[in-house]
Amino acid sequence: MSQEQGITPRAKDFSAWYNDAVMRAELADYSPVRGCMVIRPNGYAIWELMQAALDRMFKDTGHRNAYFPLFIPQSFLAKEAEHVEGFAPEVAVVTRAGGKELEEPLVVRPTSETIIYDSFAKWIHSYRDLPLLINQWANIVRWEMRTRLFLRTTEFLWQEGHTAHVDEADAEREARQMLAVYRRFDEEWVAMPVITGVKTDSEKFAGALRTYAVEALMQDNKSIQAGTTHNLGQNFAKAFGVQFQTADGGLDYVWNTSWGVSTRMIGGLVMTHGDDVGIVCPPRLAPVQVVVVPIYRSDEERAAVLAAAEQAARTLRDGGVRVELDAREGMKPGAKYYEWEGRGVPLRLEVGPKDVAKGQVFAARRTGGKAPIPVAGLTDGVRAALDEIQAALFKAAVERREANTRRGVTKDELLAMMAGEGGFAYGGYCGNEACEQAIKEATKATIRVLPDEEFRSPTAPARCAWCGSKSVVEAVWSKAY
Amino acid sequence: MSQEQGITPRAKDFSAWYNDAVMRAELADYSPVRGCMVIRPNGYAIWELMQAALDRMFKDTGHRNAYFPLFIPQSFLAKEAEHVEGFAPEVAVVTRAGGKELEEPLVVRPTSETIIYDSFAKWIHSYRDLPLLINQWANIVRWEMRTRLFLRTTEFLWQEGHTAHVDEADAEREARQMLAVYRRFDEEWVAMPVITGVKTDSEKFAGALRTYAVEALMQDNKSIQAGTTHNLGQNFAKAFGVQFQTADGGLDYVWNTSWGVSTRMIGGLVMTHGDDVGIVCPPRLAPVQVVVVPIYRSDEERAAVLAAAEQAARTLRDGGVRVELDAREGMKPGAKYYEWEGRGVPLRLEVGPKDVAKGQVFAARRTGGKAPIPVAGLTDGVRAALDEIQAALFKAAVERREANTRRGVTKDELLAMMAGEGGFAYGGYCGNEACEQAIKEATKATIRVLPDEEFRSPTAPARCAWCGSKSVVEAVWSKAY
Repeated sequence: MSQEQGITPRAKDFSAWYNDAVMRAELADYSPVRGCMVIRPNGYAIWELMQAALDRMFKDTGHRNAYFPLFIPQSFLAKEAEHVEGFAPEVAVVTRAGGKELEEPLVVRPTSETIIYDSFAKWIHSYRDLPLLINQWANIVRWEMRTRLFLRTTEFLWQEGHTAHVDEADAEREARQMLAVYRRFDEEWVAMPVITGVKTDSEKFAGALRTYAVEALMQDNKSIQAGTTHNLGQNFAKAFGVQFQTADGGLDYVWNTSWGVSTRMIGGLVMTHGDDVGIVCPPRLAPVQVVVVPIYRSDEERAAVLAAAEQAARTLRDGGVRVELDAREGMKPGAKYYEWEGRGVPLRLEVGPKDVAKGQVFAARRTGGKAPIPVAGLTDGVRAALDEIQAALFKAAVERREANTRRGVTKDELLAMMAGEGGFAYGGYCGNEACEQAIKEATKATIRVLPDEEFRSPTAPARCAWCGSKSVVEAVWSKAY
Repeated sequence: MSQEQGITPRAKDFSAWYNDAVMRAELADYSPVRGCMVIRPNGYAIWELMQAALDRMFKDTGHRNAYFPLFIPQSFLAKEAEHVEGFAPEVAVVTRAGGKELEEPLVVRPTSETIIYDSFAKWIHSYRDLPLLINQWANIVRWEMRTRLFLRTTEFLWQEGHTAHVDEADAEREARQMLAVYRRFDEEWVAMPVITGVKTDSEKFAGALRTYAVEALMQDNKSIQAGTTHNLGQNFAKAFGVQFQTADGGLDYVWNTSWGVSTRMIGGLVMTHGDDVGIVCPPRLAPVQVVVVPIYRSDEERAAVLAAAEQAARTLRDGGVRVELDAREGMKPGAKYYEWEGRGVPLRLEVGPKDVAKGQVFAARRTGGKAPIPVAGLTDGVRAALDEIQAALFKAAVERREANTRRGVTKDELLAMMAGEGGFAYGGYCGNEACEQAIKEATKATIRVLPDEEFRSPTAPARCAWCGSKSVVEAVWSKAY
């Protein structure tokens, strides 16, 4: 697409729309390295805001950041049987370094459980050292065959929490707590509603006892995993010898958890809020929350308008609003609007001669609607507008999800839904993996989660949506990214 | 070393002291991957404070963060002749990924000029796109033979600035500006005095036109490069075709700069301020600036003392001080002191029954000296103490450097100095690389910089310190990390 041609409408080709919206906003770019992307400043600024919000929540729950090696000895990966089976096919391997062949090849981390728990084994001696609550911000490499900007790339950025606990209950509490943190981040910052629940065995993390996830429905009615937490049990502790002296003098293996979200969330943000003009940034994650555009025709108007626009920008900046003044010469206001809309800036303030005369600015919301804001009380007025936009984005996303959710689906309904519009399909599940696999083969939909109580249907389904035998648990099916 | 044995005195073995101090403060740990380290939470917290300070300065000078791929096609490195010669011997190479041999091996970035300027070629079209001011926070891999925690590791964390400009003057201004930013960071945050200047051709960055550096003298009288900036000229622009339309309608190659500091700075911090007890954190980079330790003998005392200690910690936290309350039971105050001293916490507040009665806390500085601070005005008193410690650390480092600096050295003095105590040796230089190499072979000292005017000797040296022929420029020699 070129800027002049606009971008592909969502209804025509959602996938093409996504790429166009990302490119138009200059969030990312393709790179000469297969499957790797370049995160451009506009995209990285969103990631920085995401990092700041998450990091604050991690620290408030007692976690500390650390950094572990990029490289993992190949033998480490093999120490946990399910883990190596899950990750071995997609690793990148360093075989040569410093001009020599390595004796043992090094894997570029696809996740860091193994290298981190090796350190934990050195650091943990007694129950007094527990819980150990660590987080790492890092780059990760998984050799993916089909890649999409942000959604699936060979290299991506993420955070990975890794903790060790005295018993299963404490590890479970941690896995649940961090799931709640992710939910809060998704809902309050990304303005993206999620459902929470546990994964089935076939969908859980390689090496975990239980995997929990938050799942969000995108505008094309496919689901994205927007955060995942794992109760790893004692699997890795046994593989890496992470033992501790218990309070009563015994010796036991620690219980681990791990949890992560990645730059994929930027893709989730785009696909939740974007429209046919481009991306829409929820105000709390918008690198530029407000753009001020001066409008004038003559030199006379110019001086007064520019002064008012500068003053408005200064007032907002002093008030803690992330604001840009677009005073570029030789560029029409309409062209500026187009550019900032494509970047998803939630609020535009237009300042023309009439506005100066009236002591106001004219506020245009990226989500639609225009209204003046008096210059007296500008910061409060802008803050209120940003809060409303944030709330409206969340509300619209909730409504869209609800409109695309079916409950108590039968086999025929599930087949029709996944062959058609997609969405979240709630139905009974017999717990037999054969049904799960058969549904996946027939519809490409997977069980996203066995939903937590809060999200379950008022009446528990009686029959498995697929085989009709007794349902043991409610499941949510969807196609997914 | 074990905690009970204390750490090796600096005078006995500075290198052993350094490792002991780093381990005792739990800043880092060895890893099972050759030459890679684990940055533990205490060390990473210092890095986070360094990042925050630098990132603010980069943004204030108009730079934006972005992220480029970890992997670089091997052919990219070869496009700039000096660059590949400089880095090829120390790269780690991915030859296998996703279960297959790669057609073209991928180098794990040893620095990112090549992969970044490939993107710049796509993004830059006209002089209106310039200057382009980008920074990246990233991990870097260089296959080093002899490694030391923080100072030289196979993998390290850094930031690398990469910019493009319309002409040489603007690139030069940028290289100089960022050198000044590094100097300010080193002096005002790390409390580490530096000298600035330009590198000789033999010491410059592989592919640069000119390399500037800030150099700091450690307690063992060896120098550390504490930030470096490069005017890359048009070398990389020509190799990667980064062209732009000039204001007058012509076509030209951009002028690039790059600049970086790394986790090595943590090693510099340790070697500048540490003493025989362990590390000393300058307050502005101390993850814990103040530790509050309650002191009591009886249960009666306990309640009042704990309440006062908690109140003090709360007051300081509300005042923006990074404070910890160490209320651990079953641990004597002395053991707590020992632990926090080893972590380099600049100020300890002791709260005993007498202090409670007097409405004061007793403040012990990590750098020596004890004095009460009244509870009324606690935050101001603590802030003043922290400012004084920060200033005193800088002053002591300046004095130590001056005491270990000789000016106008002769050949014999240079030889004696480098065979003995070391330090900064200022002397005349004929500009002949043969002399530079001969000195390096005879003394292991290198020209750290040709110092900027501000640091030059009042009288320019007349003769080359080595060959005695006419000096063309003053040089500063030192052994270095």
